[in-house]
Amino acid sequence: MTSQTFRLSYGDCDTVGIAYFAIFYPWMERTYSCWLHDNGIRAGQMVEDFGVYVVGVHSEATYLGQVTVFDELTCTVLRDRIGTSSYTLAFAFHRGDELVTLGKMTFACRTPEHTKAPIPERLAKLLDTLDSSS
Amino acid sequence: MTSQTFRLSYGDCDTVGIAYFAIFYPWMERTYSCWLHDNGIRAGQMVEDFGVYVVGVHSEATYLGQVTVFDELTCTVLRDRIGTSSYTLAFAFHRGDELVTLGKMTFACRTPEHTKAPIPERLAKLLDTLDSSS
Amino acid sequence: MTSQTFRLSYGDCDTVGIAYFAIFYPWMERTYSCWLHDNGIRAGQMVEDFGVYVVGVHSEATYLGQVTVFDELTCTVLRDRIGTSSYTLAFAFHRGDELVTLGKMTFACRTPEHTKAPIPERLAKLLDTLDSSS
Amino acid sequence: MTSQTFRLSYGDCDTVGIAYFAIFYPWMERTYSCWLHDNGIRAGQMVEDFGVYVVGVHSEATYLGQVTVFDELTCTVLRDRIGTSSYTLAFAFHRGDELVTLGKMTFACRTPEHTKAPIPERLAKLLDTLDSSS
Repeated sequence: MTSQTFRLSYGDCDTVGIAYFAIFYPWMERTYSCWLHDNGIRAGQMVEDFGVYVVGVHSEATYLGQVTVFDELTCTVLRDRIGTSSYTLAFAFHRGDELVTLGKMTFACRTPEHTKAPIPERLAKLLDTLDSSS
Repeated sequence: MTSQTFRLSYGDCDTVGIAYFAIFYPWMERTYSCWLHDNGIRAGQMVEDFGVYVVGVHSEATYLGQVTVFDELTCTVLRDRIGTSSYTLAFAFHRGDELVTLGKMTFACRTPEHTKAPIPERLAKLLDTLDSSS
Repeated sequence: MTSQTFRLSYGDCDTVGIAYFAIFYPWMERTYSCWLHDNGIRAGQMVEDFGVYVVGVHSEATYLGQVTVFDELTCTVLRDRIGTSSYTLAFAFHRGDELVTLGKMTFACRTPEHTKAPIPERLAKLLDTLDSSS
Repeated sequence: MTSQTFRLSYGDCDTVGIAYFAIFYPWMERTYSCWLHDNGIRAGQMVEDFGVYVVGVHSEATYLGQVTVFDELTCTVLRDRIGTSSYTLAFAFHRGDELVTLGKMTFACRTPEHTKAPIPERLAKLLDTLDSSS
């Protein structure tokens, strides 16, 4: 499953009544980690499973539309850029048909000695199955 | 809808790998507020709608079973105690059939002058439709 | 150090402009864990250090006064009840001299086989140094 | 005050034991909002005060060093780019002398009719007092 659906509640919204800018980030991670997990890859145990570890090196969000309490949003993980030792995923947040927020997370693969490592083949193949963000 | 279902992700779990104790509280509020909203009551605008406001005076959670990353939990709002000017709701978190956490939130009704107010009739009737926690 | 001081910001407050009820819980944990850490006890590694592990079995908060954005709060950990295999700590949140929220967390000590264990002596001695909540 | 200092606790760290990537964002907002507030500008009430409102249009964080539980971090707000109707602030997170995370937030000024508005003069003057991020 490449998406997660949730409803905004009071705890997600600031005093002005719109979604707090930071609430999108945990939903990106949840969507990504659950998708990996559903496909047999455990984000927290890649050293044991693949001999490399994967670190987040960048995250960002661009806010295109205001969302407010009780809006239902769907976060979908997309392929943005797949390199040799790093990859960037996009996270499209839709309210119905409207794209309201576009997030990105960049991950880098490292050897246990902290040098660059290629993306493990099984992970690379899985990333290729994602729809492209462009 | 009296329940919300969600999956635990890395951001919900602490370094020991089990769910962080505080993550249950926003899900209680989300379950409660969405249920009210689905039934036409806006938790944030009761003064405008009913002439009273409702404040949270107590919250608690009892942890019965450990839950870990990727577990799917369902939070269900239940009726615990309905008084004349305050009410306590219970929030049962189940993983499958197992009750893993039991939360409670107590709300008090106040006049705009901050004195005790009876629970608005429409809210009281709605609370009565909830299953009992006992 | 038995206390932590912080200022409420927009992300801590809900649409009504008052502090969201759940924000107090992570500050209780931060105050508790940092205090333990300052005294040489690592909350996440008690099995390795003492042969027992400590689990949170209950948390609660009673809201006595409304706090709003930019208020400065101090959370202080206090001794509430020390038993033989479990203990309850209180967390007093003050805004200046005014007690605005009173939190509690109850912890139970367990053997690696999940049976009751006495509170490790070094931890028990440290708990005794806390001011009483009553 | 252009900075906020805090210590990482268990709730800030994921199962791998390093700071969860999303925890930096609320500290950016807290640092920014408290700094504005200390200088007499209320981020949530700019329409009333200046006749324009300010929306966050982008946020990002680049992770340069891993931080772990109990690390003490200082978040400092810096001037990154000041335009005519929008501005970008940088947020440097230091552990001692080491820059561990670099965040950014971009804000745009709008008229109540949602068209571009110049940065209010008083805000622009205050932004100019910030140290530059470059």
